[in-house]
Amino acid sequence: MDGITVLGYAACAVTALTFLPQVVKTWKEKSAKNVSLMMFLIAFVNEVMWIAYGVLRNDMVIIVTNVIMIIMCSVMISLKLKYKDE
Amino acid sequence: MDGITVLGYAACAVTALTFLPQVVKTWKEKSAKNVSLMMFLIAFVNEVMWIAYGVLRNDMVIIVTNVIMIIMCSVMISLKLKYKDE
Repeated sequence: MDGITVLGYAACAVTALTFLPQVVKTWKEKSAKNVSLMMFLIAFVNEVMWIAYGVLRNDMVIIVTNVIMIIMCSVMISLKLKYKDE
Repeated sequence: MDGITVLGYAACAVTALTFLPQVVKTWKEKSAKNVSLMMFLIAFVNEVMWIAYGVLRNDMVIIVTNVIMIIMCSVMISLKLKYKDE
């Protein structure tokens, strides 16, 4: 594995964590008034596309990264719908 | 260009738009109290890594996607710092 591939894996690992702080913050505050639902809907769509791309390319790093992201994204969408006006 | 590559390009295009609705919403509402700063800081770091990866791989699609995202992410970080308590 070359250095560029390692960088790609590291980028995937950091990317997978992106939504976690928002999920934790919303969970704790029980409020998501200023959070954009559309952002997470777009993220959901692009993660479905990335998972399909990963499956077709047989690329486990892309699949794992985007499965983690789509789970967090789904949690965030449900939290947003639950706390949308609070 | 095969169908899988087209899917990858389409996924990049949708990904590039992810943060736009949050930027627009925060800009309009002048409030970002419930938005996680850490989410955008993590996104900033991973976009720097993706841009480096794109440059090293000489992959213009990855570069363009992540330059768009890092610009929106930077705007969102400055809006969050401006409106953090509102």
